[in-house]
Amino acid sequence: MKKIYVIGVGLIGGSLALDIKKLDNSVTIYGVDKSDEHLDLALAENVIDKKATLEDIKEADLVIVSIPVDATVKLLPTILDLVSDDALVIDVGSTKEDICLAVEEHPKRRNFLATHPIAGTEFSGPTAAIYGLFNGKTNIICEVEETTFKLQEKALKMFTDIGMRIRYMKPKSHDKHIAYMSHLSHISSFMLGKTVIEQEKNERDIFDMAGSGFESTVRLAKSSPEMWTPIFEQNKTNVIKTLEEYIQNLTHFKELMEKQDFESINQEMKDTNYIKQILKGIA
Amino acid sequence: MKKIYVIGVGLIGGSLALDIKKLDNSVTIYGVDKSDEHLDLALAENVIDKKATLEDIKEADLVIVSIPVDATVKLLPTILDLVSDDALVIDVGSTKEDICLAVEEHPKRRNFLATHPIAGTEFSGPTAAIYGLFNGKTNIICEVEETTFKLQEKALKMFTDIGMRIRYMKPKSHDKHIAYMSHLSHISSFMLGKTVIEQEKNERDIFDMAGSGFESTVRLAKSSPEMWTPIFEQNKTNVIKTLEEYIQNLTHFKELMEKQDFESINQEMKDTNYIKQILKGIA
Repeated sequence: MKKIYVIGVGLIGGSLALDIKKLDNSVTIYGVDKSDEHLDLALAENVIDKKATLEDIKEADLVIVSIPVDATVKLLPTILDLVSDDALVIDVGSTKEDICLAVEEHPKRRNFLATHPIAGTEFSGPTAAIYGLFNGKTNIICEVEETTFKLQEKALKMFTDIGMRIRYMKPKSHDKHIAYMSHLSHISSFMLGKTVIEQEKNERDIFDMAGSGFESTVRLAKSSPEMWTPIFEQNKTNVIKTLEEYIQNLTHFKELMEKQDFESINQEMKDTNYIKQILKGIA
Repeated sequence: MKKIYVIGVGLIGGSLALDIKKLDNSVTIYGVDKSDEHLDLALAENVIDKKATLEDIKEADLVIVSIPVDATVKLLPTILDLVSDDALVIDVGSTKEDICLAVEEHPKRRNFLATHPIAGTEFSGPTAAIYGLFNGKTNIICEVEETTFKLQEKALKMFTDIGMRIRYMKPKSHDKHIAYMSHLSHISSFMLGKTVIEQEKNERDIFDMAGSGFESTVRLAKSSPEMWTPIFEQNKTNVIKTLEEYIQNLTHFKELMEKQDFESINQEMKDTNYIKQILKGIA
């Protein structure tokens, strides 16, 4: 794999580019982006070697599609139309069902591998790209059996070389579980931020208190709305279900407080402390 | 201040002890705790120099009260009864109104300073105590005018020596704002943990996905129920109000998703991104 095209040079695409280039300095990383400003930034930061356009991907050995998930659904068939018969195309989107459906019947389906590297920060754009973002992290691969064996192998080597462990899931299962593990966390954080801003935005001094739990819990509310809106849209059925359960649990907690049943409140927290055992050794 | 008694040798009391001892090795740190096991641990970890009992505090130059806030309300009058006329007594509790009320009429009220150092981790107990926990953090001091000038001065010197900036607030105002900045964050995190555990606890593999937002957002759900139950109880009116607003915002978000109004959802997130500006430079 000598010619690598990154479509969407942001946090994930840019960080993958940095890791891949570090592993093999002889590859050329081409950036494709709808924002020319992003491309210039990516070039200036050495995230990419050269600017390119979508039409150039016919030359690609590997195409990394790292754009919002609605754009992936729209663009992926065209990308597969354009690439050569030997090219590997991977996406890195946070939803998998609609993306896999979009190319289900495509004649070059076997050139495509659906992946979701579980890594990131709350920042976005080419300046957010960092080395080593994926080291020790999990990559969820969906419908692996739909990709040619030779291209599977190339992808797996690349992901393990940058330090990722691989997990295989069905797209439906991925989207259901990621709704709990990621999408709900983002909404809970955004709404926490909204609630506090509504009450406190005119009292800037108050944010000196942010170290008491708010700052880390609201971190995800800095995330990009452009990236997250289409994720929530594509995964709406699962996300609505998680939200219903979350609201129900919060309402129950509030009712316990109104009834002054602090013994039950203590028990709720004790039961949830079990999260310590679950998360131990992860991260 | 040569003889310092820490009542409750946990995360906050223990970390204060470590910082104070580092600043002046000639002080003696005495630990008082209802758990003898905690005291032995604190001694073994060099968090305290000697074990002591409550009666011994008549010898104290400084008493740090770092126990759950319900215990502080109960014990603080007795502590003030016991100490000498020159002793400084400070508490470090996460609520301030009930604690200040508990000693409002106490003859030694002017020996007491109400503080809330905004620092901590999700861990607890003497083994959670760490050096430098308070460096660069904010300490909220309430009713400073009720403390003798000389003892105010000693306390301020100690807190600024360990790197804290000081903010003055009324107890009522502290409890209202800390409900948004800390207590709501803890409940949102506990209920996020509960929602995920209910659905996913039999699918341990799923927690490989925790890096996608869940892990940091659920961090506070590891906190001690023994410490947090009395905080929620003392601050119940404020906390219930924040919970109502939070549930209302989450419900609105869910309704937008059900109506498939993703333009408004995008706008909600854009508006909340304002949190980036607010938090910039804090922490």
